[in-house]
Amino acid sequence: MKRIAVFTSGGDAPGMNACIRAAVRGAIYHGLEVYGIRRGYNGMITGDIFPMNSQSVSNIVQRGGTMLKSARSKEFMTPEGRKKAYENLMNAGIEGLVAIGGNGTFTGAEVFYNEYEIPTVGCPGTIDNDLYGTDYTIGFDTAVNTSLEAIDKIRDTADSHDRVFFIEVMGRDSGYIAIQSGIGGGAEIVMVPETHTPLKKVVSTLKDGWSRSKSSSIVVVAEGDEEGHAVDIAEKIKNQVADKLDIRVTTLGHIQRGGTPTAYDRILASRLGLGAVEGLIKGYKNVMAGVVNNEMVYTPFIDTIKKPKPIHDDLLRMVHILSM
Amino acid sequence: MKRIAVFTSGGDAPGMNACIRAAVRGAIYHGLEVYGIRRGYNGMITGDIFPMNSQSVSNIVQRGGTMLKSARSKEFMTPEGRKKAYENLMNAGIEGLVAIGGNGTFTGAEVFYNEYEIPTVGCPGTIDNDLYGTDYTIGFDTAVNTSLEAIDKIRDTADSHDRVFFIEVMGRDSGYIAIQSGIGGGAEIVMVPETHTPLKKVVSTLKDGWSRSKSSSIVVVAEGDEEGHAVDIAEKIKNQVADKLDIRVTTLGHIQRGGTPTAYDRILASRLGLGAVEGLIKGYKNVMAGVVNNEMVYTPFIDTIKKPKPIHDDLLRMVHILSM
Amino acid sequence: MKRIAVFTSGGDAPGMNACIRAAVRGAIYHGLEVYGIRRGYNGMITGDIFPMNSQSVSNIVQRGGTMLKSARSKEFMTPEGRKKAYENLMNAGIEGLVAIGGNGTFTGAEVFYNEYEIPTVGCPGTIDNDLYGTDYTIGFDTAVNTSLEAIDKIRDTADSHDRVFFIEVMGRDSGYIAIQSGIGGGAEIVMVPETHTPLKKVVSTLKDGWSRSKSSSIVVVAEGDEEGHAVDIAEKIKNQVADKLDIRVTTLGHIQRGGTPTAYDRILASRLGLGAVEGLIKGYKNVMAGVVNNEMVYTPFIDTIKKPKPIHDDLLRMVHILSM
Amino acid sequence: MKRIAVFTSGGDAPGMNACIRAAVRGAIYHGLEVYGIRRGYNGMITGDIFPMNSQSVSNIVQRGGTMLKSARSKEFMTPEGRKKAYENLMNAGIEGLVAIGGNGTFTGAEVFYNEYEIPTVGCPGTIDNDLYGTDYTIGFDTAVNTSLEAIDKIRDTADSHDRVFFIEVMGRDSGYIAIQSGIGGGAEIVMVPETHTPLKKVVSTLKDGWSRSKSSSIVVVAEGDEEGHAVDIAEKIKNQVADKLDIRVTTLGHIQRGGTPTAYDRILASRLGLGAVEGLIKGYKNVMAGVVNNEMVYTPFIDTIKKPKPIHDDLLRMVHILSM
Repeated sequence: MKRIAVFTSGGDAPGMNACIRAAVRGAIYHGLEVYGIRRGYNGMITGDIFPMNSQSVSNIVQRGGTMLKSARSKEFMTPEGRKKAYENLMNAGIEGLVAIGGNGTFTGAEVFYNEYEIPTVGCPGTIDNDLYGTDYTIGFDTAVNTSLEAIDKIRDTADSHDRVFFIEVMGRDSGYIAIQSGIGGGAEIVMVPETHTPLKKVVSTLKDGWSRSKSSSIVVVAEGDEEGHAVDIAEKIKNQVADKLDIRVTTLGHIQRGGTPTAYDRILASRLGLGAVEGLIKGYKNVMAGVVNNEMVYTPFIDTIKKPKPIHDDLLRMVHILSM
Repeated sequence: MKRIAVFTSGGDAPGMNACIRAAVRGAIYHGLEVYGIRRGYNGMITGDIFPMNSQSVSNIVQRGGTMLKSARSKEFMTPEGRKKAYENLMNAGIEGLVAIGGNGTFTGAEVFYNEYEIPTVGCPGTIDNDLYGTDYTIGFDTAVNTSLEAIDKIRDTADSHDRVFFIEVMGRDSGYIAIQSGIGGGAEIVMVPETHTPLKKVVSTLKDGWSRSKSSSIVVVAEGDEEGHAVDIAEKIKNQVADKLDIRVTTLGHIQRGGTPTAYDRILASRLGLGAVEGLIKGYKNVMAGVVNNEMVYTPFIDTIKKPKPIHDDLLRMVHILSM
Repeated sequence: MKRIAVFTSGGDAPGMNACIRAAVRGAIYHGLEVYGIRRGYNGMITGDIFPMNSQSVSNIVQRGGTMLKSARSKEFMTPEGRKKAYENLMNAGIEGLVAIGGNGTFTGAEVFYNEYEIPTVGCPGTIDNDLYGTDYTIGFDTAVNTSLEAIDKIRDTADSHDRVFFIEVMGRDSGYIAIQSGIGGGAEIVMVPETHTPLKKVVSTLKDGWSRSKSSSIVVVAEGDEEGHAVDIAEKIKNQVADKLDIRVTTLGHIQRGGTPTAYDRILASRLGLGAVEGLIKGYKNVMAGVVNNEMVYTPFIDTIKKPKPIHDDLLRMVHILSM
Repeated sequence: MKRIAVFTSGGDAPGMNACIRAAVRGAIYHGLEVYGIRRGYNGMITGDIFPMNSQSVSNIVQRGGTMLKSARSKEFMTPEGRKKAYENLMNAGIEGLVAIGGNGTFTGAEVFYNEYEIPTVGCPGTIDNDLYGTDYTIGFDTAVNTSLEAIDKIRDTADSHDRVFFIEVMGRDSGYIAIQSGIGGGAEIVMVPETHTPLKKVVSTLKDGWSRSKSSSIVVVAEGDEEGHAVDIAEKIKNQVADKLDIRVTTLGHIQRGGTPTAYDRILASRLGLGAVEGLIKGYKNVMAGVVNNEMVYTPFIDTIKKPKPIHDDLLRMVHILSM
């Protein structure tokens, strides 16, 4: 292998730039040439492929977003799109790919390999931490800290006004952000897709708190909770507690995707970017580089996509114990 | 005057604690006794009035929210409510009040004085900066910086995905937060209640940017803009730009009210808390302490409530010039 | 076991409050009574021991420092001091201890047990991450992020002025903070006690960078590096590069110990506080609760104190590869 | 005037990039061509002068440091140096200059004008806020907030260990950073060059606090205090309080210069950058653009350099009143 390319795809996540940097410098360190592709699979199709060197990635380790930009590509889902992508990669002499993204990205790489045999090693870049094969994904720690800062701010107001706040955080299929920012933020209740929290239970917990003269409460809701969005849940229970509790709702939204990455994310991203390049060199293909129990592991895309990643029991039971 | 009381009322704002601290220690410094009242006018009515000393306000200068809590009081709007409040103040021997809040707070104090002749000096505590008689209100600088941090984060994502983001910030009647966070955040457009920005203009500016290959744009919208909420505005123009631009909306919400106050807010709040106490000592009543051109001034409540507070022309025209 | 007590000892670390909270609420959850001891072993000797309940630890999860205060106790090193401590604990009916601190704390607990048979379970509370038996210690992640923010700020100046900055971070015996903040901050060189970086190598790396027209460089130095403090190292090499490089030195100092704990530290601290209480209930004594590979483990104090905790090879070699 | 150039000189300050951006876009808006000069007067001499357009300053409003780099130039102090600078400017067709910096920068511009008649309008870019002719300088608000965050962190440790901390902040000739971060941080004592605080007074204040069982204290010292550096002051008084007080010293150092600029600094910098360009267009020369009482004013360099800028009395007396 002489020349590889790096790209980011799917939703952006803080730390992607640190990962790009590590992949680029890791490749150069190991004697490879390295190219960048802009806007993920889109850029493969349009031929937005360019050579990178050590200085291309100077001074980006601390930046949110992705310098290679990201996009979702409908055309890559068609055989014609993939053919164009293949031809552009051939023209540029690319023999291997480092793909930074999530499930959709890896599915695309898998399909692409089956047709054209260009090997890809993936790096898990998504704030949701919903990928099997790595303890944490790039961007997750930053997103949790961003949510936590928001919860800290909202608690100032909740306490000052004796209010109950429902705060919705990201996580369509996964409660990781909710559970961690909920525990960290001292939330009374955390509602996640992984477990069912009946509304009856929410109401009784809030009333209990009120009867123990807990004047304010925080409920953190993952956007994918089976009871619906935070605003819907608040609406449903409002009547049952309205005589006593003043309820407000806030949806944190896109701020969770951005921002300077935390130390954890920068280091994880650096390890994974380097790990992906070294994986390619060792001959891995269609696997995701991950860090499990502090060691680099490579997991087939098919497993990262299909296998569930449960939340540790310790965390689920802590919410209940600590919110007394 | 021998004994005064301090309270916070209306929406909480970062820096209120620094203001309470300064009022309490300023009072003690000048030989007065000082009490705290919890939950604003509500606490006057329920008699939640308690003596404070220098240590009561230790280690709060950096905290968001208000240690005296805040509430809106319907009962204080009735003569019976105000009678109870008066009796409780008399029982506690309170001869003057420091009221930290906004227009509603000051209106209440004015009415109360007309009936019972207890003098109040107000401190402008509201993130909206919509009070005449002071260059800045307590909490405004923190709210602007909180909004700005959110905009910085969202721009990471906007740039990575070539998107247009509509970001709604607080400001029902005032565009101060929007204009300052918009200029600071490098927004392409800022929509505020003070001026009319036709939707046609919004569309053409976004299209212009696109034609100059500006791939991402930020539009900051004050919640009180005459064209509606950010989500409504985005909906209205979506069809006209949808072929080219990918639009997203975020409403920052309650995070703007909380958080550790900035240096500016802590110092302003400290000056105003001390200034209010010294105003009472000098015999002022029914006025708001403010800092105008770096000097302490006292403005009658009636003016702070009724007089408009326009945004400086320099700021309005800067948005246009700098977003090229 | 009916009644236990919690205390913090040694240098404070962000997250200690979250740990206290979890220990207190965990104890109550499991039907135990729980007391607090102020100022560590000092408070045992002076009898500063008081009952705590669920509300004692409200609204502290986000605060730096320790609400139970900390101190180093010379008197506890004497048999007389420990005798007083024992008597006070007996009078208060304390049957088990949760000790949050580092090596000195655990050594004290071990000696104390050998004399008086009061079981202690420890929680690793130290920013240095130098304790065997846990992947991370409470406060480490926050300290790394604090150092990283400082490095990010200093790089602004280094870049603007084409300077080389030597930045000293904490770590008397351990390079953990240095290596993580160095990798995260994109440092060119990281000097840690665990490996020897000859000054000749430092000079040649800096000169190499300069010859590749790298205009600014960051060198992170752990305070316990064998070549001395950052200021000494800078002094030693100054003459060898002075014609080309403008060198500055900064020592981060005590800011690394304080601040709002990160999500990681709050969650880790919560798990460990709860884990310590559950360890006591299960009959553990003279062990430290730790999280290794995401599972709770209990390690004898003697091992946490004596066994080395090496830095992962991946991290050591990354510095070199990524700083190209 | 058809073509102007912008440069930064002297110590860097957060907000300089926002100022550059406003100068560049303001110039274009008014129909001027605009060039950048790298490394201040050095770049004039070496001819590092290049055309800028609107996109040259995209996405920099939030960045610390200066994209045009800064340097101190010995050669510019010589007639030969200035001759070269003049020739390079002539070759590039530059007819006016926007100089972002402090006293040294403005002195250079004054001398240069007297020889070659190229008009300069300055923007006050220095964290020290020591320039007459503007209420605040670019970078000051950020530096104060950075210092304040550090003080907040250190207080966590001071409180936890019952310690006295001496914290040195920047300010060789000016106590602005010290006084504002000291008031904002709730410091017991603030030592500034503008007033004399006898050591005897420091000792008695600390002892007083101790006798009122104030267990921890913060003393903020401006680096230019007439009693010496923080470390010297602490050394001098140590013996007089050592039986009761545990004293520590921290020097904040270069972190104060860097970091993402605050909203205040971004807006001030934007106004001043635009104001400088509009000043040149109006025919001003050898003046500094400043904002005084919220209005743009132009002050001759000679006044900005020579006239003193006293700290407001309100601030000086507040330290004493609020630290009770």
